Amino acid sequence: MNGTSSQTTASGLALDYARVRAYSLELVRGLSAEDCQLQSMNDASPLKWHLAHTTWFFETFVLAALPEPPPAIDPAYKVLFNSYYVGIGERHQRAERGLLSRPTLEEVLHYRQRIDQLMQQVLSDASQRHSLAALVTLGLQHEQQHQELMLTDLKHHFSCNPLMPAWRTNAPEQRSAIATEPYPYREFTGGLCEIGASDASFSYDNEGPCHRVWLEPFLLGERNVSNADYMAFIADGGYQRPELWLSDGWDWVNQRQARAPLYWQQTADEPRHAFTLAGRQALNLEAPVCHINLYEADAYARWAGARLPTEAEWEHAACNAPDLAGLFGEVWQWTNSAYLPYPGYQPAAGAVGEYNGKFMTNQMVLRGSSCATPQGHSRPSYRNFFPAAAQWQFSGLRLARNP
Amino acid sequence: MNGTSSQTTASGLALDYARVRAYSLELVRGLSAEDCQLQSMNDASPLKWHLAHTTWFFETFVLAALPEPPPAIDPAYKVLFNSYYVGIGERHQRAERGLLSRPTLEEVLHYRQRIDQLMQQVLSDASQRHSLAALVTLGLQHEQQHQELMLTDLKHHFSCNPLMPAWRTNAPEQRSAIATEPYPYREFTGGLCEIGASDASFSYDNEGPCHRVWLEPFLLGERNVSNADYMAFIADGGYQRPELWLSDGWDWVNQRQARAPLYWQQTADEPRHAFTLAGRQALNLEAPVCHINLYEADAYARWAGARLPTEAEWEHAACNAPDLAGLFGEVWQWTNSAYLPYPGYQPAAGAVGEYNGKFMTNQMVLRGSSCATPQGHSRPSYRNFFPAAAQWQFSGLRLARNP
Amino acid sequence: MNGTSSQTTASGLALDYARVRAYSLELVRGLSAEDCQLQSMNDASPLKWHLAHTTWFFETFVLAALPEPPPAIDPAYKVLFNSYYVGIGERHQRAERGLLSRPTLEEVLHYRQRIDQLMQQVLSDASQRHSLAALVTLGLQHEQQHQELMLTDLKHHFSCNPLMPAWRTNAPEQRSAIATEPYPYREFTGGLCEIGASDASFSYDNEGPCHRVWLEPFLLGERNVSNADYMAFIADGGYQRPELWLSDGWDWVNQRQARAPLYWQQTADEPRHAFTLAGRQALNLEAPVCHINLYEADAYARWAGARLPTEAEWEHAACNAPDLAGLFGEVWQWTNSAYLPYPGYQPAAGAVGEYNGKFMTNQMVLRGSSCATPQGHSRPSYRNFFPAAAQWQFSGLRLARNP
Amino acid sequence: MNGTSSQTTASGLALDYARVRAYSLELVRGLSAEDCQLQSMNDASPLKWHLAHTTWFFETFVLAALPEPPPAIDPAYKVLFNSYYVGIGERHQRAERGLLSRPTLEEVLHYRQRIDQLMQQVLSDASQRHSLAALVTLGLQHEQQHQELMLTDLKHHFSCNPLMPAWRTNAPEQRSAIATEPYPYREFTGGLCEIGASDASFSYDNEGPCHRVWLEPFLLGERNVSNADYMAFIADGGYQRPELWLSDGWDWVNQRQARAPLYWQQTADEPRHAFTLAGRQALNLEAPVCHINLYEADAYARWAGARLPTEAEWEHAACNAPDLAGLFGEVWQWTNSAYLPYPGYQPAAGAVGEYNGKFMTNQMVLRGSSCATPQGHSRPSYRNFFPAAAQWQFSGLRLARNP
Repeated sequence: MNGTSSQTTASGLALDYARVRAYSLELVRGLSAEDCQLQSMNDASPLKWHLAHTTWFFETFVLAALPEPPPAIDPAYKVLFNSYYVGIGERHQRAERGLLSRPTLEEVLHYRQRIDQLMQQVLSDASQRHSLAALVTLGLQHEQQHQELMLTDLKHHFSCNPLMPAWRTNAPEQRSAIATEPYPYREFTGGLCEIGASDASFSYDNEGPCHRVWLEPFLLGERNVSNADYMAFIADGGYQRPELWLSDGWDWVNQRQARAPLYWQQTADEPRHAFTLAGRQALNLEAPVCHINLYEADAYARWAGARLPTEAEWEHAACNAPDLAGLFGEVWQWTNSAYLPYPGYQPAAGAVGEYNGKFMTNQMVLRGSSCATPQGHSRPSYRNFFPAAAQWQFSGLRLARNP
Repeated sequence: MNGTSSQTTASGLALDYARVRAYSLELVRGLSAEDCQLQSMNDASPLKWHLAHTTWFFETFVLAALPEPPPAIDPAYKVLFNSYYVGIGERHQRAERGLLSRPTLEEVLHYRQRIDQLMQQVLSDASQRHSLAALVTLGLQHEQQHQELMLTDLKHHFSCNPLMPAWRTNAPEQRSAIATEPYPYREFTGGLCEIGASDASFSYDNEGPCHRVWLEPFLLGERNVSNADYMAFIADGGYQRPELWLSDGWDWVNQRQARAPLYWQQTADEPRHAFTLAGRQALNLEAPVCHINLYEADAYARWAGARLPTEAEWEHAACNAPDLAGLFGEVWQWTNSAYLPYPGYQPAAGAVGEYNGKFMTNQMVLRGSSCATPQGHSRPSYRNFFPAAAQWQFSGLRLARNP
Repeated sequence: MNGTSSQTTASGLALDYARVRAYSLELVRGLSAEDCQLQSMNDASPLKWHLAHTTWFFETFVLAALPEPPPAIDPAYKVLFNSYYVGIGERHQRAERGLLSRPTLEEVLHYRQRIDQLMQQVLSDASQRHSLAALVTLGLQHEQQHQELMLTDLKHHFSCNPLMPAWRTNAPEQRSAIATEPYPYREFTGGLCEIGASDASFSYDNEGPCHRVWLEPFLLGERNVSNADYMAFIADGGYQRPELWLSDGWDWVNQRQARAPLYWQQTADEPRHAFTLAGRQALNLEAPVCHINLYEADAYARWAGARLPTEAEWEHAACNAPDLAGLFGEVWQWTNSAYLPYPGYQPAAGAVGEYNGKFMTNQMVLRGSSCATPQGHSRPSYRNFFPAAAQWQFSGLRLARNP
Repeated sequence: MNGTSSQTTASGLALDYARVRAYSLELVRGLSAEDCQLQSMNDASPLKWHLAHTTWFFETFVLAALPEPPPAIDPAYKVLFNSYYVGIGERHQRAERGLLSRPTLEEVLHYRQRIDQLMQQVLSDASQRHSLAALVTLGLQHEQQHQELMLTDLKHHFSCNPLMPAWRTNAPEQRSAIATEPYPYREFTGGLCEIGASDASFSYDNEGPCHRVWLEPFLLGERNVSNADYMAFIADGGYQRPELWLSDGWDWVNQRQARAPLYWQQTADEPRHAFTLAGRQALNLEAPVCHINLYEADAYARWAGARLPTEAEWEHAACNAPDLAGLFGEVWQWTNSAYLPYPGYQPAAGAVGEYNGKFMTNQMVLRGSSCATPQGHSRPSYRNFFPAAAQWQFSGLRLARNP
């Protein structure tokens, strides 16, 4: 982790803490304890677990590391709410997170409250605040990352219920975006460029070090690909033409009998619908296409006579042309870059160093941010990453081309 | 289904209905909505689902079959709470029962209440009561069967939580039983015997027809095998000696690295414990061994120089020597009889006919009843059945031998 | 094993030995070493392995048990060609039998030759012949059992090759049988009957002891169900109607998308064909239906308003009405009896005792014999057994009914 | 594919053709038809299939594309020996290649002969030779690639046989290499470098276009890591320390209970051995470590305080310092670069375009060549690629470091 932004001053950090922590609770407002316990697949955790794990992060990495640490709220939580930090010890099986009716949601909320009290006490001490600022900021960024996952996972959980429950009455993923035609590109000349995060403000360790890369000239799409664009691909037999697909992608299509993005619902006699955070809705053709995996993004690009950008191209463009539509806040944009360390990358010391580095294999990078990303958690250097087959994220695409 | 016992008279049936239905609620007393949603494996359903499904049974087979059926409480329930009745139409996937946070437990309890009101209305009409008595009795027996499954499944759900929650403070499966030594047998002369249910009182269709079987002389154990007995088998290398096991059983031992009954917990430095409905408890050596599958029961019997009884031997003995200890109320007793139709068996007409007949393959018969079986749900002709590898039932064994 | 028939006299046994062993070679005549190495699924072994394993049986159970045993032909064979005799020690993985290019077919044939020489030497000694007669007879029956499996397995191996190779120019499974219409039954009065093998001639241990069973009156089909019969079931939607199927059977239909017996091939524009031991052939409607599993047999019977016989009914009828058509030599006939020990059953002592007893679970009994069964390997008491889902045996059905 | 080297002149191409094709036969010299049919896992094909598929390549892409194509040798081969070219039509299942006893090895050798005759006829015509040179060269490079796979796959096939057969009496993978201590590095200054193949000589399409990359200064190992080096890693608990492993790598270690490279054999009471192409051999400590996957290579590098090179670093070094020991002919060297298209990459037109491009996902790049790579099939720009978990290739590692 680099940088601790200016807002981490005296009261700033405590306010940030309160604001970020409160937003997690805002996300579960209106949900029942039963809703918060759902786990529909191994990859998607119960919301109760997200609420507890983000709290565990502060208890474990901040409070327990104090010279005089407070007693553990519950010793069992150390194992139950550890996600993947081998350095911390045993972990409860990921696939069994949905089997924990105890602790109850109420107990988890109480756990949050207790940790928040302790944290605010710590943050009220100027010298502790100073020495802990980097870790606390990391914990808040960590919580924001989970806030997006809470929506992503909840959508998947609810999608398995034939009653098609809604989280809110408005579906954020259905917001219209600019969808000018034909698909417009902007030209970039490339050359020797710098990408990666500097130390000026917070970033994860995987975003640095800042380093030089050589870019050939390229074109990048002015906007994200829309549902209407994607329907043309489907209508043109996109899911039936092997020549458009990567080999692994074609296997995936056949195994899953995939014919459309995740959550799209099709019946013979009505316009296309999709399952959304607002329940079942008619598909908004002007919204960016969402819930496609890398294989689908790549096949669409090939069909369109284009390609996916590399992450360096994307970041270079995002820094130099921040007026490109939909860079942030619409959908994560698949790149054709594998998630690998930058030159000179060093993971943070200690168990916190497991945050990013050990996942640098078998995953692809997504850039930008989505409709589910919390305010203040987007930046051009941010590297999101998921396996090529993952569909349940709010993931879409922006095209690139050679001149 | 045969027989409608004398208690199905006027007020009798309504009282039975109230009593049986109330007991299901008694079982979930003290459990949270989160507890009632757990599904730890495909075979074990959430308690909320059991509560709803047993209600659906009355709505579907009794109320909806009335000349003037009441409107459905919720049309979605028809699919959501259908277990396996293909004749009724679509069914929600068994493996996904734990993914239903909606309807909530509260809504399911309300569903029960509404159906109970409607049922009591129906039962207050003498002519309807008469014509529906058989079906209502079947529904009550069905609910009692699920009452046992509620405890069986809950135990499994809770066992997956490292906090080892307790359902009640007393563990019914730890009750001491008579454990005289050496293992005592009683002799039966066999000959041409009758087994199977007659029409005098209620029985499932699979318990009949009553028919003749020829039995050679045999000995049947005076009591069920105890935990102490079973520990001697383990101590003698029972789980490491292939010659004691059926071939499929030996494969099961190796795949699962089985070394003890399900729920037994072993550490190097303390006496043996087990997970029970009262949480983690020291093992009661005088209680009958429980949660063993057919392979384990069969291997134990071979080790003891004995064998499992056939279901005909068991039933003949249970009718002629009802003073044998532990026939009922301790553990289900594995027999070496496959679950197959009796000569002349006819499933009931209509969708209710799917209750038993279609499961008559790849399962073995257990006889008696267990500590989790509700009062009034035991009889000598009762045929319980599970696959040979199933451990999570309250299943134990009683030995048999040739003279 | 019981009984050692009169043919096990002096020269008789040696002649039997020579005759049975020669027939195994006759079966592989015209096949290449490559053909003999094929293993298309775990359940179906390479023919080279069958040739070696049947030889291993004599080496292990007869020669190595002599007071002065000859040296092992190759110590590695002890493990490589042990099928499932835990009492003999380690075994090569069943699934990897097809990965043994060494020893070569030539070496295996040489192995047979060497063992045959040694065996004939032994059998030329009258006192040894006398004391070994039972074991040698068992070995020959064992080899005959494998002779049928050689054809059964070869058919499966070849069926995986798009070139559809033929073993011989005539397809034994396509022989016409009597197919009178409507399906004719013969009546049996039942009562207290005896079934099971006596000691008069050879039988496997699982065929005894001879014992009494009570049979209610029943009807048994005069002939096996034909391909034409079975096509009427298919045409009537047999594979699409859940009410006709056992629950496990219906799951099997859906998982496999089963629509016809194994090996049937269907194209839109030509009459139905099947893959046979003579390659691809037009289906002979008058031949008995073959390669159906228990689920299909049971569903057909239910559709026909009939049921499967029990093994006791079948054996009783076969002994009392040996003129019933197709009892032997057409198809194995599924019964609705699970493969379980008879009253008083005792496995043979030693490793040979693993032959049958340890498989007495999760399998169903088939009776009769098939077109692939070698001469002299059929008898009314013979109990063949396979899991309910197995299709690759030469298995069909004969109907039964209650009066 | 770029470049058609000077050797593709008149007689040159025909001679190359003869030489390369003959070497495939040399590889199977001494192997039986049974050996050539083995398929020990989906990823490893039978040698008979390799012999046929490389022939199919010439028949399909060269001969069948002639203005007056010769008749197909056997129409069935079009499907049977197509590996993955969707553009050519149907393909026989990869996992079932070992189930083809027909065509026999003899028939496949005859097929090779016929195609070779036809090819030599074509190559004797100067104008055809000219227009086909690029395709024929591609076909020969393709065959050389399969020649390495023949040894790689054969080693895996044979390793599944407890008899541990040998291919030849010398084990090429056990050749000693320079193993100076401590592990020596050479420094490179980096900067704006060019990598990728130019058009001067043959290369696959995935090796181009030649393009600029920016490299930070780096150190690259003077030699490959040796068996002795790797044993120190094992002795230091390398396979038991999660902090050394990528997350997917650690999962792999636990699932497979991996404790050493593939083919290493360990017993308590003797020095370490390995299965080799010469059968079981004592491990040569001075040989480069081989048969490790990316996870093992990466964990070793982390343990050694180093890292894997990127493919650009490796290629830059190989071109500028060709005297580095063991760049070619020892082991393929894992890089930490994902297999992705170079800037401006365009797959070849037509079905041949499926050769490389569609596999550009979920794989990592290996550089150099191995002891099994045929003469003339190595070059600095060559990009070999396999999934991170693959162990059965002749794969090792060379370390890199930051200054």
